[in-house]
Amino acid sequence: MYGAQALITTLVDSGVEVCFANPGTSEMHLVTAIDTVAGMRPVLGLFEGVVTGMADGYARVAGKPAATLLHLGPGLANGLANLHNARRAQTPVVNIVGDHATHHLQHDAPLASDIVGFARPVSGWVHTATSPESVGADAARAVHASMQAPGQVATLILPADVAWNEGGVPAAPLAVQGPSAVSDDAVAKVADAVRSGRKVGILMRGDVLKERGLAAAGKVATAGNVTLMADTFAPAMQAGAGRVPVTRLPYFAEQLVEYLSGLDVLVLVNTKPPVTFFAYPGRPSVGKAEHTELLHLSHAHEDGMGAMEALADALGVSAVTPATSLFRVDDTVGDKWDQFAIGRSVARHLPGHSIVVSEGGTQGAGTSAALATAVPHDVLSLTGGSIGMGLPVATGAGVAATDGRKVLSLQGDGGGMYTLQSLWTQARENLDVTTVIFANRSYGILQIELMRTGAGKGGEKAQSMLDLGNPELNWVDLAHGMGVEATRVSTPQEFESAFASAMRQRGPRLIEAYI
Amino acid sequence: MYGAQALITTLVDSGVEVCFANPGTSEMHLVTAIDTVAGMRPVLGLFEGVVTGMADGYARVAGKPAATLLHLGPGLANGLANLHNARRAQTPVVNIVGDHATHHLQHDAPLASDIVGFARPVSGWVHTATSPESVGADAARAVHASMQAPGQVATLILPADVAWNEGGVPAAPLAVQGPSAVSDDAVAKVADAVRSGRKVGILMRGDVLKERGLAAAGKVATAGNVTLMADTFAPAMQAGAGRVPVTRLPYFAEQLVEYLSGLDVLVLVNTKPPVTFFAYPGRPSVGKAEHTELLHLSHAHEDGMGAMEALADALGVSAVTPATSLFRVDDTVGDKWDQFAIGRSVARHLPGHSIVVSEGGTQGAGTSAALATAVPHDVLSLTGGSIGMGLPVATGAGVAATDGRKVLSLQGDGGGMYTLQSLWTQARENLDVTTVIFANRSYGILQIELMRTGAGKGGEKAQSMLDLGNPELNWVDLAHGMGVEATRVSTPQEFESAFASAMRQRGPRLIEAYI
Repeated sequence: MYGAQALITTLVDSGVEVCFANPGTSEMHLVTAIDTVAGMRPVLGLFEGVVTGMADGYARVAGKPAATLLHLGPGLANGLANLHNARRAQTPVVNIVGDHATHHLQHDAPLASDIVGFARPVSGWVHTATSPESVGADAARAVHASMQAPGQVATLILPADVAWNEGGVPAAPLAVQGPSAVSDDAVAKVADAVRSGRKVGILMRGDVLKERGLAAAGKVATAGNVTLMADTFAPAMQAGAGRVPVTRLPYFAEQLVEYLSGLDVLVLVNTKPPVTFFAYPGRPSVGKAEHTELLHLSHAHEDGMGAMEALADALGVSAVTPATSLFRVDDTVGDKWDQFAIGRSVARHLPGHSIVVSEGGTQGAGTSAALATAVPHDVLSLTGGSIGMGLPVATGAGVAATDGRKVLSLQGDGGGMYTLQSLWTQARENLDVTTVIFANRSYGILQIELMRTGAGKGGEKAQSMLDLGNPELNWVDLAHGMGVEATRVSTPQEFESAFASAMRQRGPRLIEAYI
Repeated sequence: MYGAQALITTLVDSGVEVCFANPGTSEMHLVTAIDTVAGMRPVLGLFEGVVTGMADGYARVAGKPAATLLHLGPGLANGLANLHNARRAQTPVVNIVGDHATHHLQHDAPLASDIVGFARPVSGWVHTATSPESVGADAARAVHASMQAPGQVATLILPADVAWNEGGVPAAPLAVQGPSAVSDDAVAKVADAVRSGRKVGILMRGDVLKERGLAAAGKVATAGNVTLMADTFAPAMQAGAGRVPVTRLPYFAEQLVEYLSGLDVLVLVNTKPPVTFFAYPGRPSVGKAEHTELLHLSHAHEDGMGAMEALADALGVSAVTPATSLFRVDDTVGDKWDQFAIGRSVARHLPGHSIVVSEGGTQGAGTSAALATAVPHDVLSLTGGSIGMGLPVATGAGVAATDGRKVLSLQGDGGGMYTLQSLWTQARENLDVTTVIFANRSYGILQIELMRTGAGKGGEKAQSMLDLGNPELNWVDLAHGMGVEATRVSTPQEFESAFASAMRQRGPRLIEAYI
């Protein structure tokens, strides 16, 4: 057994079933190892940013890591932005990076680079394998490290000779310790705050934003003057009819500060104190008012859902039925062509338990609002802020959704162009992903931010750097070029028809909503 | 004057005329500074790998650096692979990366990351600006650092508040010291070797591969038993009729070793001892035979062209007329549809002094061979080995080619998909770039390397990771989606007609050579 086989065998034994890959010469033995070891599904991406984004989306849906397979430092470099997003989303990723054979490194061949240097900013764990005998154990540790609560990127660098040499020994999986239980003291302090009648905001992230955790939060809310809130870009969240609604924090700094200003107490559940996405001249970076008391119910590595249920117990409201969203969709198609028209159609036709990947930029709010009272669904967001996450994450979610759940990818055109190669993998794997491109031919957020940063409107040269309209992108052509059926729509009626049709069928489809 | 204005003013005063950009919120003051300062041309790329690759291509043609403008760590991350290529090509790049305002960093906002960590592996110089008063001086130093012979990536990190605060002071340009002269001793030693009649190989890189240096090398070759050679992937090289021909070193390890085995002396001109691109089980990494003596005529930071002329002087052959390539193109179109048919058409129709950007992978050799005796032209190669360099470098070359020179971009389909967004910038800027996609629907090189690494043929899963045929890419659709005229051809006659037509016109065009 050669080293690469020991690696792949160990990954499979540790529950890793999918390898998102873009290999090169130095990874050829990994490629054949995937062939000779049963149980590993390779999924090819045509660009490494697609590969790492797919691994992020897969893990957010599957609840366990996929492996990547990247070619040397430059291959890793191409995947770093979406690994940054995975890091911010606390997604477990087993990030395998090939390297030159150990004896070759001294020669500084063209593709040699500081792989550890590239990996470190995005990885919670980095290790370079040194022998076929130990690479199995390295793989087991990488899986284990990736799943350390709340989840992180674990990078394992595999020199080509470690992969190709004989002597590989697979390792047994390491037991993964789940999130830690919170202390009774933390629960008691929050219970006191809720009971006090003061105005309490509970800001959540992580598993507590899934149905069971939301239900517990809804019970807690009945015991005081409580507002339930989620991080603006919580990595994953369940929403829709029958679920306890929570409000995402506003994006813009002044709205965030305003929204939080009335709170006496801010309780954090698996998240950090809210800060503004960017800094602006003369404006605060911190969302919380000075007078607001800060309490942690649970830290990121702790069991937020369990803590919320313990809190409901402590408050004596475990048996209460919480208020949930009622099903309500707007039946009017209307004539005004905007993101709200799109949102209404989406809400009308989305199948229950779909996975919605949201990178809609300035055009996404219409759909979020309409979906709040539509069928139950999951939302995956751009937690790390690096655009180009949406299409790959949707693709990875499609690979993970083996239970027949549909994936809806809501994507701004600017961010979509970063990783458009994702569409090819959707076609290749025949994934049930519908992409809606909000084609406003602009970095819309920057048009707003140009004013807000005080940089002014800008003249012709400045505007040209925010404008995508010259030439116009044609997403139908781009999708066809990668084997995905596509249509352009520019009225509410056309969108209604195209979206309803896409929801009735299976397989990848793209709708360019030309706004 | 705010900090960003001091930065841009200094760049312009230092001779930097073009800024390849993909800005975000934290760079809005840089965007408006470009507007308010005369002399800086912004060129938007829809992905940062395009931005950095354009900067590389621009500098290789213009002989001086462009600036980039990248959005925080993730924006830099997306540009790293082509900065790796620029580093390997020793291209001067002034790499400007925006960062959060200094007071915002402590809050670890979603887009915060270790920018210095990302930058270090690709940069010869990294600095973070700290005040508007000093950012002008920082910019002058960055330009100076980028041009330190032989050229490197100089990364200047610009916090948003340093950009937006008043108090900016532009700095005067710093005098750039050109490459150092080589010692008389180095020239004398090589002269002795040539005179000795031993078999001497002269391996070159850098400016010596331009017409004047080649002429000197051709003279030197008349004074002994000399073979003139260039690095396999020399960053830039002039070739064609009327120029002294040199042979590129073979790519594959065993051919490289074989080719060099007969040499008594290997003379290096601005390059390093040749090593194999990858390691293979049981094969050597070093190209040079043990018995071959190694001499340096010039190191990378030294004046190789001057050294070659000094060598010709020392050998007394300065007045000799060297042998140059005769103009000879094959007029037959033929019926066999392969890379050699493509090469013949290219050689027939390419305008003189065109710039050929070569990332043809397994399909590029046919054109290189045919062009050797065609019109004089420049060739820019994939020095760093990270695919996805071709389309952006061709785009940047097109921006630099203000003298009416045509750019021909020879691109494999696998690598082309990495940075296809380049086509949009070609259309936007109406650049005179013709792209030929070698569409063999495969990572062709990996099909070969799978065998050569001893990994075996691989089964269905392995083959699927090397195959781009399911679904087939359609480059005509992809190009149309980004506003570039395109056509697919699949016979020598069709290629001949499409290529001749493209050469007669101006503006961006794409030919998908469906092989």
